[in-house]
Amino acid sequence: MTGDGAAAAAVNGERLWDALMTMAEVGRTPAGGVRRLALSDDDRRGRDLLIGWLRDDGCAVRFDDLGNIYGRYPGTDPNAAPVVCGSHLDTVPTGGRFDGVLGVLGALEAVRALRDARVRMPRPVEVVCWTNEEGARFAPAMLASGVVCGRFTLEEAYAARDADGRSFGDELRRIGYLGSAEHRMPPAAAYVELHVEQGPILEREGAQVGVVDGVEGIAWGWVEVTGRAAHAGPTPLEDRRDALVAASRIVLGLRALAAELPGVRTTAGRIEVSPNTINVVPGVVRVTTDLRSRSPEVLDTAARRLEALCAAVAVGDGVEVRASEFWRSPPTAFHPTVTGAVAASAQELGYSTRRLWAGAGHDAKYVADRYPAGMIFVPSAGGLSHNEAEWTSKDDCARGAAVLLGAVRRLAGAA
Amino acid sequence: MTGDGAAAAAVNGERLWDALMTMAEVGRTPAGGVRRLALSDDDRRGRDLLIGWLRDDGCAVRFDDLGNIYGRYPGTDPNAAPVVCGSHLDTVPTGGRFDGVLGVLGALEAVRALRDARVRMPRPVEVVCWTNEEGARFAPAMLASGVVCGRFTLEEAYAARDADGRSFGDELRRIGYLGSAEHRMPPAAAYVELHVEQGPILEREGAQVGVVDGVEGIAWGWVEVTGRAAHAGPTPLEDRRDALVAASRIVLGLRALAAELPGVRTTAGRIEVSPNTINVVPGVVRVTTDLRSRSPEVLDTAARRLEALCAAVAVGDGVEVRASEFWRSPPTAFHPTVTGAVAASAQELGYSTRRLWAGAGHDAKYVADRYPAGMIFVPSAGGLSHNEAEWTSKDDCARGAAVLLGAVRRLAGAA
Repeated sequence: MTGDGAAAAAVNGERLWDALMTMAEVGRTPAGGVRRLALSDDDRRGRDLLIGWLRDDGCAVRFDDLGNIYGRYPGTDPNAAPVVCGSHLDTVPTGGRFDGVLGVLGALEAVRALRDARVRMPRPVEVVCWTNEEGARFAPAMLASGVVCGRFTLEEAYAARDADGRSFGDELRRIGYLGSAEHRMPPAAAYVELHVEQGPILEREGAQVGVVDGVEGIAWGWVEVTGRAAHAGPTPLEDRRDALVAASRIVLGLRALAAELPGVRTTAGRIEVSPNTINVVPGVVRVTTDLRSRSPEVLDTAARRLEALCAAVAVGDGVEVRASEFWRSPPTAFHPTVTGAVAASAQELGYSTRRLWAGAGHDAKYVADRYPAGMIFVPSAGGLSHNEAEWTSKDDCARGAAVLLGAVRRLAGAA
Repeated sequence: MTGDGAAAAAVNGERLWDALMTMAEVGRTPAGGVRRLALSDDDRRGRDLLIGWLRDDGCAVRFDDLGNIYGRYPGTDPNAAPVVCGSHLDTVPTGGRFDGVLGVLGALEAVRALRDARVRMPRPVEVVCWTNEEGARFAPAMLASGVVCGRFTLEEAYAARDADGRSFGDELRRIGYLGSAEHRMPPAAAYVELHVEQGPILEREGAQVGVVDGVEGIAWGWVEVTGRAAHAGPTPLEDRRDALVAASRIVLGLRALAAELPGVRTTAGRIEVSPNTINVVPGVVRVTTDLRSRSPEVLDTAARRLEALCAAVAVGDGVEVRASEFWRSPPTAFHPTVTGAVAASAQELGYSTRRLWAGAGHDAKYVADRYPAGMIFVPSAGGLSHNEAEWTSKDDCARGAAVLLGAVRRLAGAA
C-alpha cells in the first residue's frame, strides 16, 4: 500500500487519551501528578509499557547505548531516511501527565492511525523516546539526544550522577535499557516533536495549535554579591554593606532590563544567602540569572547590560559584585520544510494556529543541529508546567496528534 | 578591712589578658575563633576553669538549677544584698574570644583586684556566668537569665532542644552542672555587665568606654510573598507573578523605611525561596524582618509602615503578601544608679566615654526587669562580632575591667 489511503488516516482521540492516562498511572503522585525520574524503576515500567504498545502496532523496536527507544513503522522505499517523531517519558520530581509524554504517545497514535488505515508511505516513520530530557535526575537536560546529535560525549553522559551519587551509566544498565550504539537514530529526513506549550500564549490567544519556529537561546549565570556580615543589632545603617539589599537591586534591575530591551526575558530563580540568619546583615548573596531570546544579538546585549547593572550596584552599595555566565545555548531556528509541513497540516485540519518560539529546551533543539526539525505545541491550561496540576484537554491532545500525523504524512512523501 | 583601701585596688591588665587567652583555648577553632556551644563538653571545660579561678581567689562558688555559676566575694555587712557582675561563656558556632567572656573574666579580675588590695565593702560581690546566652544551641537566647528573672519557666528551659534533638535539661545534667534552685541569684543591689560593643561606634568615634543607657527593643517577623511558580522559559513577563521580584521590593522598602524614620534600624537577614531553581519563576518567598529601636512608639510606627509597604507591593505586583510579627521585646532603659556609677567610674579613670544603647540582647536586659542594672561597653575592632576575627585590644579589655571595678566599688558601698 502507498500514500493513496493517507488522507483516510485519522487519529483516535479516545485511544490517545487512554494511553496518556494509562501512562500517567506509572509514577502517579498522590496529588495526581507524575514522578517518573529518568532511569528509575518507574521510568523502566513506562518504557516497558511503550515498547509493548509499539510492538502491538507492528513496529520494530530497538534501543541504543543511551537507552533511547525507537519503534519503526516501515516505509515502501527501503533506502529512504525515516521521518522521526517523539519526545520523552521522564518527568521532573513533581511533574504532570503531558510534558514529554504527549509527544511520545502522540507519535504512537499517529503510527496507529497509519496502521489502521493501512497507509504506507515511501519513508519509514520512527517513534522515538529520548532518555533524560528533563535533566531533573542527571544534569544536563536533553542529555541523550545531545549525545546522539554530537553535543555531549557518551562518556559525559555515563558519568553524570544523580544527587545520591548513582551514575547514568550504572542506572541505564540496572533498568535493562543499555542497548547498542548502532541502534542510534539514523540520518533523518525530518524530525517532528509534539509538546505541550508550557506557557500561556496559545490559551490566552485562543489558538488551537502552535507552529514553533525555533527554540530561544538561553544564557545562565550566577551573580555573587559580597558585602560584610554584621550583627543586625549594633551595626548602624551607614556602616552596613548588606549583600541582600544589593542583590535585591540586581533582581529588580534584571527585571527592568527585560522591560526595556525588546525580545528578552529574564528571571532570577534561585538565591543563596549567607549566613541567612534573622539577626545578621547578609554578607554574601548568590543569585542565578536566566536570560532568553530568539536573537543571539539581543542575548549578547542583555548579558552586557546585566554586567553594567552589577557594576553600578557594586559602586552604589559599596559591595563586590561578580557576574559569571556558566552556560549559553544559542537560539535554534527550525527548518522551514518542517515548520511548513506543520502549518500546512494544521491548516488542512482547519485549526487556528499561532507561530511562536519555544522558551524552554527540547530534544528537537539538539536534533535540529543535524537534521531538519520542528515542533508542534498545544495549549497548557493556565500556562502551567513542571507542575502536578499540568493540564491539556483531550481535544487539544487529539488536535496535536492529528497535526503531527498530517506533518509526518507530508514529510514521509505521502502528500 | 573595709572601703578604706578601695581606692588602691586596681585591675591587672596582663592577668586579665592571660585569663582571656587561656579561656580562648577552650573550644578554639583553626581560624583562631572559639566554638563553645552552651552545655557542650567545651562549655563544661570552660566552666571548670572558671570555677577553679574563682575558688583560688577565695570566692564561695555555687551553681543553680539552670547551671548559672556564681562566685561570691564576701562583704562586711552580712545582711546586704550583693552587687552582681558577669556575663556568659557560651559562644555562637564560629564565635570570637571576647563576646561574653570579657564580662565574666572582667568581673573575675575586679574581684582579684579587690582581694589583692584586701578591700572589703559592705556588700558582697558576685561574679555570675549565665548559661546559654547566645541561644545558638538552645533557642531562645538569654534563656537562663530569663528563667531567673521570670521571663521563661524552668520547664520551658529544660524542654528546649538543640538541632540534634538533645534537651537543655539532659545536657545540663550530662555536663554535671545541674544545681539547686535555691542557689539562684539572690535579690541584687545592682547588676553590671561588661561586654564588647559588637558594633563600630566606639572605635569610629574614638571613645574608650561606652556607658550603656539601655537595650533597644526588637520586633521580629516573617514576610511571606505568594506569587505563582512558572517555567522561566515559556512564561511571558506580563503573565508572571514573581515572588522574588516582589520580595526584593520589600527588602529595599524595608531599608528605605529605616532611612526615612529616625531611630529605627531594619534588617532582612534570611530569605527562603520556593522552588529556588534557576529556570523557575519563584512562587513563594519568605523573608525575615528585624526592626530595632530604643523607642516603643517608633517600633510601633515601623511595624505599621512595614505592613503598609507589604500591602502596596501586593497590589503593585499582583501577589499575596502576609507580614506576621512573631516576637517582640520592648526596649529596656537601664537604671540611672548603675549607669551613673559606670559613668563616674570612667570619669575618675580619665577615660573618654560615649553614651549609647545596646542593639543586641544581653542578660542585663532580663536582669533589669527585677534589679537596677547597667552595662559597660568597650570597642570591637571594625565592629565585628559573632565572628572568629572578633578583636578587642588588651588595653581596651583592661579599661573595661577597671571601669567595672570602679562601678562595683561605688555600688557596693565603698565609695
